[in-house]
Amino acid sequence: MAVRYELIKQCRHSGARLGKLHTPHGVIETPVFMPVGTQATVKAMTPEELKENGAEIILSNTYHLYLRPGAELIKEAGGLHKFMNWDRPILTDSGGFQVFSLGPLRKVSEEGVTFKSHLDGSTHLMSPEKAVEIQMALGADIIMAFDECAPYPCTHEYAEAALDRTTRWAARCKDAHMRDDQALFGIVQGSMYRDLRERSIRELVNLDFPGYGIGGLSVGEPKPLMYEVLDYSVPLLPADKPRYLMGVGSPDCLIEGVMRGVDMFDCVLPTRIARNGTVMTSGGRVVIKNADNARDFRPLDEECSCYTCRNYSRAYLRHLFKAEEILGLRLTTIHNLHFLLTLMKKVREAIFNDTLPELRNEFFTKYGYDTEKGGK
Amino acid sequence: MAVRYELIKQCRHSGARLGKLHTPHGVIETPVFMPVGTQATVKAMTPEELKENGAEIILSNTYHLYLRPGAELIKEAGGLHKFMNWDRPILTDSGGFQVFSLGPLRKVSEEGVTFKSHLDGSTHLMSPEKAVEIQMALGADIIMAFDECAPYPCTHEYAEAALDRTTRWAARCKDAHMRDDQALFGIVQGSMYRDLRERSIRELVNLDFPGYGIGGLSVGEPKPLMYEVLDYSVPLLPADKPRYLMGVGSPDCLIEGVMRGVDMFDCVLPTRIARNGTVMTSGGRVVIKNADNARDFRPLDEECSCYTCRNYSRAYLRHLFKAEEILGLRLTTIHNLHFLLTLMKKVREAIFNDTLPELRNEFFTKYGYDTEKGGK
Repeated sequence: MAVRYELIKQCRHSGARLGKLHTPHGVIETPVFMPVGTQATVKAMTPEELKENGAEIILSNTYHLYLRPGAELIKEAGGLHKFMNWDRPILTDSGGFQVFSLGPLRKVSEEGVTFKSHLDGSTHLMSPEKAVEIQMALGADIIMAFDECAPYPCTHEYAEAALDRTTRWAARCKDAHMRDDQALFGIVQGSMYRDLRERSIRELVNLDFPGYGIGGLSVGEPKPLMYEVLDYSVPLLPADKPRYLMGVGSPDCLIEGVMRGVDMFDCVLPTRIARNGTVMTSGGRVVIKNADNARDFRPLDEECSCYTCRNYSRAYLRHLFKAEEILGLRLTTIHNLHFLLTLMKKVREAIFNDTLPELRNEFFTKYGYDTEKGGK
Repeated sequence: MAVRYELIKQCRHSGARLGKLHTPHGVIETPVFMPVGTQATVKAMTPEELKENGAEIILSNTYHLYLRPGAELIKEAGGLHKFMNWDRPILTDSGGFQVFSLGPLRKVSEEGVTFKSHLDGSTHLMSPEKAVEIQMALGADIIMAFDECAPYPCTHEYAEAALDRTTRWAARCKDAHMRDDQALFGIVQGSMYRDLRERSIRELVNLDFPGYGIGGLSVGEPKPLMYEVLDYSVPLLPADKPRYLMGVGSPDCLIEGVMRGVDMFDCVLPTRIARNGTVMTSGGRVVIKNADNARDFRPLDEECSCYTCRNYSRAYLRHLFKAEEILGLRLTTIHNLHFLLTLMKKVREAIFNDTLPELRNEFFTKYGYDTEKGGK
């Protein structure tokens, strides 16, 4: 089997679990946060920097790579790992989320989704078979089924139709998938409706995937609603398979998701806000351009051991952002990735030591509750 | 003495010389190319990357740092070295070239130059005393006198007035300079007029600077004219002091300058063209976005040992540039700096081994004569 989940320990205080995900490119300790490298690069980072900050697996994107540079080119290069010089595990998203996000530029049928490229307006059909074919060419360790992600809010009727199609497409993805060295995960949908989530899980589990994505969350709903969906959904998923909450990555959501039994997360949030000059610190978010950083010669976070905090002051970082220098966003990206990946390491240690509730309380007390969206 | 030049060997075949420049932050082997970090950062690079590619000294800019973030702030931070986390030597340009480049935004008087900031339009006076005061606050190892750089072409009369003022300003800079731990270099002017260059050198040498910049070249004149000026100027400079050809950095100009006795060079060329996707290779320039790189899975330069060439293909670099990914310009910047700094290392070895003419011939045969401007 391409990917095998090993349950190491179940938390005594919550649904959290410590595990290992065995893949062709190495073992990942879970719960894990996966930095996003949409276009075959985690923006502004080298693979060495990702590793130095603790990244064990990264995510890349079928939709973007299919359009540019094309899956065949990446296959010729020897696959995505070799193309981008990343020798650890990769997960590719199926492109479903991106295609459905195109709005008026796409048309859905049972066959798949016809859409116009955001790059040149050319017309393409993405189907379950095509999404799997592309992902087989890219060669990630974990690939995702092509799904229909319903918007929020949406009616029960709409959500039901989307979920039923997602299930039928999941079966077609499974039939199309031919590589033994990669695992195909199914994706749970059902919007915020409990009966639909339950049905989605029941039907997908019948198809027996080696792992399950939880889709259709962090799409604009309030966080408590997302937690509620996780509360009743995750326990229905098989305990011997990894659960991946898609597109979620704010620190509070990571902790809350882990406590509800989620093993994997991805989000552009830490890297995107870093490029805009916002950093996560143990004391909460800091906007680096703010005037009070002008003569602040302390590091971003005095508790942090990342390259940025070891070597640069807030004053220098502010100067770099004011002067629109690329080094600025490199340094904040390093810091934010280090912050989130270190948080996940602490979470794993806390599960091991049965101290997860204490970690949660300490974190929220110091960091402050983050009311923003998890973000895509 | 803050900076001492040690002549190691005079080339048998040309004016080239091998030397060591002793500074408070370390010894620099000359001839040397200095990467430019205009705004207290060599664009897109960390200090570690600069060192890995062989940078021994970098240049930064008085005009830019004075306007943003301000010299006082950098002084408070502990000086420019500490502010930007660079512990090797730094040279700061005086701001003369930048201020004179402002065109209609500046007005020259004997006192100095009144100019409007390119950032916010605020009015400032830059004088010899002010330029030295700022550079003392920044704390570079080598600082430059405030000069008037005449445009090309210009009349003998204009060039003469500019050179005379440059000499008077050089004397004022010397009077204003109070730091024993940094060296103040004078700047030779005189446009393309032999009598003026000779007079400039005679008068500056009378003032006895620890090193001399050769200004007013690479300002639009044909390369042979620049070489002619060097031919008659450099031999008049004292042999026991370093000579710095300002703003010159194309590979051919480096070799030609070295052979005429120049010890130091700086230029934004390698880093600027890198960010636009043009790289220097042993076989000449390569424009990475060109279609013939799309499926070229070889490195940029098969003779190159830089990080980029060790790990990435032209196809991947082209993808990064097409997708406007920051990693692309990081990787080309690394490559171009490595290329130029390695070229200078080979030049030093060739002077040592008395093989500089052979190196020159081999380089121009393979690389092709570069007819473009040295560039600022």
